[in-house]
Amino acid sequence: MTTIDESPTPTASSGSSLVPTLAGRYYCDPDVFAAEQDRVFEQMWFCAVRSADLATAGSFRKVQIGRESVLVVRDRTGALNAFLNVCRHRGAMLCTEDAGEVTRHLRCPYHAWTYHLDGRLAAAPNLGSLTEADGTRIDRTRWGLVRVELREWLGYAWVCLADDPPSFETDVVGTVSARLGDVAAVENYGVSALSVGRRVVYDVKANWKLIVENFMECYHCATIHPELTEVLPEFADGLAAQYFVGHGALFGENVSGFTIDGGSGLDRIPGVSEEQDRRYYAITVRPNVFISLVPDHVIFHRMYPMAADRTVVECDWLYLPEVVEQNMDLRRSVELFHRVNMQDFDACERTQPAMSSRAYRTGGVLVPAEHHIGEFHSWLTSILDDA
Amino acid sequence: MTTIDESPTPTASSGSSLVPTLAGRYYCDPDVFAAEQDRVFEQMWFCAVRSADLATAGSFRKVQIGRESVLVVRDRTGALNAFLNVCRHRGAMLCTEDAGEVTRHLRCPYHAWTYHLDGRLAAAPNLGSLTEADGTRIDRTRWGLVRVELREWLGYAWVCLADDPPSFETDVVGTVSARLGDVAAVENYGVSALSVGRRVVYDVKANWKLIVENFMECYHCATIHPELTEVLPEFADGLAAQYFVGHGALFGENVSGFTIDGGSGLDRIPGVSEEQDRRYYAITVRPNVFISLVPDHVIFHRMYPMAADRTVVECDWLYLPEVVEQNMDLRRSVELFHRVNMQDFDACERTQPAMSSRAYRTGGVLVPAEHHIGEFHSWLTSILDDA
Amino acid sequence: MTTIDESPTPTASSGSSLVPTLAGRYYCDPDVFAAEQDRVFEQMWFCAVRSADLATAGSFRKVQIGRESVLVVRDRTGALNAFLNVCRHRGAMLCTEDAGEVTRHLRCPYHAWTYHLDGRLAAAPNLGSLTEADGTRIDRTRWGLVRVELREWLGYAWVCLADDPPSFETDVVGTVSARLGDVAAVENYGVSALSVGRRVVYDVKANWKLIVENFMECYHCATIHPELTEVLPEFADGLAAQYFVGHGALFGENVSGFTIDGGSGLDRIPGVSEEQDRRYYAITVRPNVFISLVPDHVIFHRMYPMAADRTVVECDWLYLPEVVEQNMDLRRSVELFHRVNMQDFDACERTQPAMSSRAYRTGGVLVPAEHHIGEFHSWLTSILDDA
Repeated sequence: MTTIDESPTPTASSGSSLVPTLAGRYYCDPDVFAAEQDRVFEQMWFCAVRSADLATAGSFRKVQIGRESVLVVRDRTGALNAFLNVCRHRGAMLCTEDAGEVTRHLRCPYHAWTYHLDGRLAAAPNLGSLTEADGTRIDRTRWGLVRVELREWLGYAWVCLADDPPSFETDVVGTVSARLGDVAAVENYGVSALSVGRRVVYDVKANWKLIVENFMECYHCATIHPELTEVLPEFADGLAAQYFVGHGALFGENVSGFTIDGGSGLDRIPGVSEEQDRRYYAITVRPNVFISLVPDHVIFHRMYPMAADRTVVECDWLYLPEVVEQNMDLRRSVELFHRVNMQDFDACERTQPAMSSRAYRTGGVLVPAEHHIGEFHSWLTSILDDA
Repeated sequence: MTTIDESPTPTASSGSSLVPTLAGRYYCDPDVFAAEQDRVFEQMWFCAVRSADLATAGSFRKVQIGRESVLVVRDRTGALNAFLNVCRHRGAMLCTEDAGEVTRHLRCPYHAWTYHLDGRLAAAPNLGSLTEADGTRIDRTRWGLVRVELREWLGYAWVCLADDPPSFETDVVGTVSARLGDVAAVENYGVSALSVGRRVVYDVKANWKLIVENFMECYHCATIHPELTEVLPEFADGLAAQYFVGHGALFGENVSGFTIDGGSGLDRIPGVSEEQDRRYYAITVRPNVFISLVPDHVIFHRMYPMAADRTVVECDWLYLPEVVEQNMDLRRSVELFHRVNMQDFDACERTQPAMSSRAYRTGGVLVPAEHHIGEFHSWLTSILDDA
Repeated sequence: MTTIDESPTPTASSGSSLVPTLAGRYYCDPDVFAAEQDRVFEQMWFCAVRSADLATAGSFRKVQIGRESVLVVRDRTGALNAFLNVCRHRGAMLCTEDAGEVTRHLRCPYHAWTYHLDGRLAAAPNLGSLTEADGTRIDRTRWGLVRVELREWLGYAWVCLADDPPSFETDVVGTVSARLGDVAAVENYGVSALSVGRRVVYDVKANWKLIVENFMECYHCATIHPELTEVLPEFADGLAAQYFVGHGALFGENVSGFTIDGGSGLDRIPGVSEEQDRRYYAITVRPNVFISLVPDHVIFHRMYPMAADRTVVECDWLYLPEVVEQNMDLRRSVELFHRVNMQDFDACERTQPAMSSRAYRTGGVLVPAEHHIGEFHSWLTSILDDA
């Protein structure tokens, strides 16, 4: 259950040859996408919102997960809850705005069925006179909003729509630990305490798997990322940051910080260790998260797959709270990965149209530096072929 | 074959409990919509156009009914005819404009096949030299436009695309009589002699059944119709206007007319009876008409279902001819139901996206004040499951 | 394998009667269009680009043929090559622009796999260390771009995506010879040496077969082409230019040239014979070309079918090189067929929406002057029913 190749020294025979990718239809067939909605996005832990975006009781965010509109709401105890955004009476969407705040209750604007912030039915016109089919009084929990599972970690709310959710510890925490060697390595960055310094939303006309594959390999870095390879010279050799357990790419000798021109960045996050300093670590948490760690900030991508050929990507740049509060200049810091994003998503959009070509009917090939992507492909096909 | 619940005093057991609605897929599945086009809109009497909109011989209107483009045309005898809008030769649409007027004939603009206003083939280039397959001369009736059935009532042309149309007297006239108690109750309003004072076309991003259900119940009135419940106070209690045979909702004590602020309206339509005065009556004529009767005007809705998630609604405000001719101020009169329309269609549009949610997979529930909608659901499923 | 009716004097019995067309679904059913992409556009010789548009080594054009994006590229030997526009590595499109020029190689902008202009793999990062699955060195031809067949004739590059292409001499050259009587008749115009004086691209919201049928018959000419029938009076009688082998429509007595007002055109193309002078010849080369020959220029249409209800048509007006070089006034010359195009495509767009009507479920009829279109229908159904 990890996206990396555990064997850093593959045998020469498999190591130097070209190995096949997924067939083209996996990237453009609406039936494959529907199966992914059913068995991936609506079954796994899906990173939904930044917890701090819901500052006060009654604040909510609306998120698309698989085929569902999900409301994440902070209640009066301070906890976050996630519900399907559908009134139990006649099905109106409770919230049509992307985000907002209610005073005390979630009230359906159609017939005024009203729910507590923890989802229980609070009131409805003539509710007192209604009965269940067997004549007993209405059970306000039974007619509450449909709740879905929610866990908070790294300052984000992760939601799972499965009836029987998989282990969060194994699938999410375990993936990060396996990639970095241990969980302390990410805890050093204190991600949940950081503040959002900048957020950019990208609407990418490409399948979500093209974006994952792009993030997982660096064979393209020399071609499309001149600024990034200046800061991380080993990327110019095409070796993926995620190829070896625990590996982080070292900054170039004359590079002072992870910025667009290699000039100095901000103060190091206090918990970051000496061996983590001057290094870039990248982690893929399937199905929808990329985490990039550098000494002075964290870049956190969430993908929202919308269609076989469209993915919305929300990218947060996270800094120490005082950096954001004091309005420090983040432009050179943000510009580096924003440019990387633009370069990557352009490559993905250029790839999407060819997925339906006969030239890609049986797929393309992975070079050795991309072999670990094969594990992602095996994982996906094992899920899709299982049904 | 009526939209109302004939039993005004339902038994307590069924009367106070929640009963199920249609499943969500009925509102968003293109296959269900295709079945409705086939078995509902192209089989039943469908109200197409206001007869008076076709004032003179040669005037025509183009209307979408189910999957068909239909031309309604006034001929030289003064009668209205309805035809499929397709030339019999190579299939060009005869009229691409929504409305217009021809001098003597309908002439196909592609190869000049020319039809009488009653549909018979009148002329075509080289027509004299053409023969049927058996060598006999061309039969100009056989190659005339494809005619569909048309009946006029209440000043509207109702069209039926069925090969074997159902009884207009039962399905249309009978529905209105059953709702009001007798047919005289609607005849009092002299609807066919009224003039269109205002027409508004709404493009609603919702399934046609959400709009029907919304019109049939008033459980939502207190929540979304502040102006309407001011004029009709009993609506604030959520009882549907259509719940009892013959019932009309009484104006509030201080209300002078059916206007946005309850101020006085126009003169009462002469035929309206004393007991009909100061009352609002609503009638649903399946599949596509709502009629609202108030003492000084009639509000007539026609729905054109365009897709599972889109319905065009054309609403006429009908007044005594002298009111329209004398350019009386209709603004406060029109504004009331225009605002009701906007409020209702907004609620329907807010409901449509949730129809595909797993939370609505088996549908929602009807409270007692909505129970009569169940009859609409039974009627529809009996048609769709019949095939 | 020719679009014309070989029998100029059909028997009276079949000759005067109405005969059926294709059923409406052939023009609007996406499954029929998908079958046409598979068995017509991706199997036959498809006219792709004007050779002279690719003047120098490294210049390329991107064309949509069936479901494939195809690159036509001029190499250093001066030859044209055609390739699927897909990198063999991870499937990115090599060129996303419609046309352009590269210096020496086609280089994939994603991972820098680089191809010679003849398609062979030239270079890739770390290519030297890669091996085939059996451990042997990479075969640069095997990993070259996927080549498709290309032939040049009349100054155009014709491309065939079939694994086993049909005979170009039979299908393309043979069709033109059969229409005109012999191949010399077209060679007289020296089409490949002419220059493009004007190009117009039309985006037509109609099925490609409606456009073919329209070009094949002149029964519509009297109705929609007043300017054309002024220049070619016999067209007013509805006889198709393509009805008889070798026939060309004669200019009207007072007509000096093939121009919008019948005024004089340009100098006659030197090779055009006396009997070809003052005549208009039209040829349909299935699936996507129309050629129109007049004494002083050639009008060459290429169709690109994009969807069941959409076809892009690119029309070239070709003149003697000196006419174009000397910037002679072509406006009255171009305007005639540009207006014909607009009139025709408007008729096709007006026909498309009716193809799904029940009135056209079994199709329409062909009058005697259109009977040769039946051969086009037989040809198509024989291909589609073959599978």
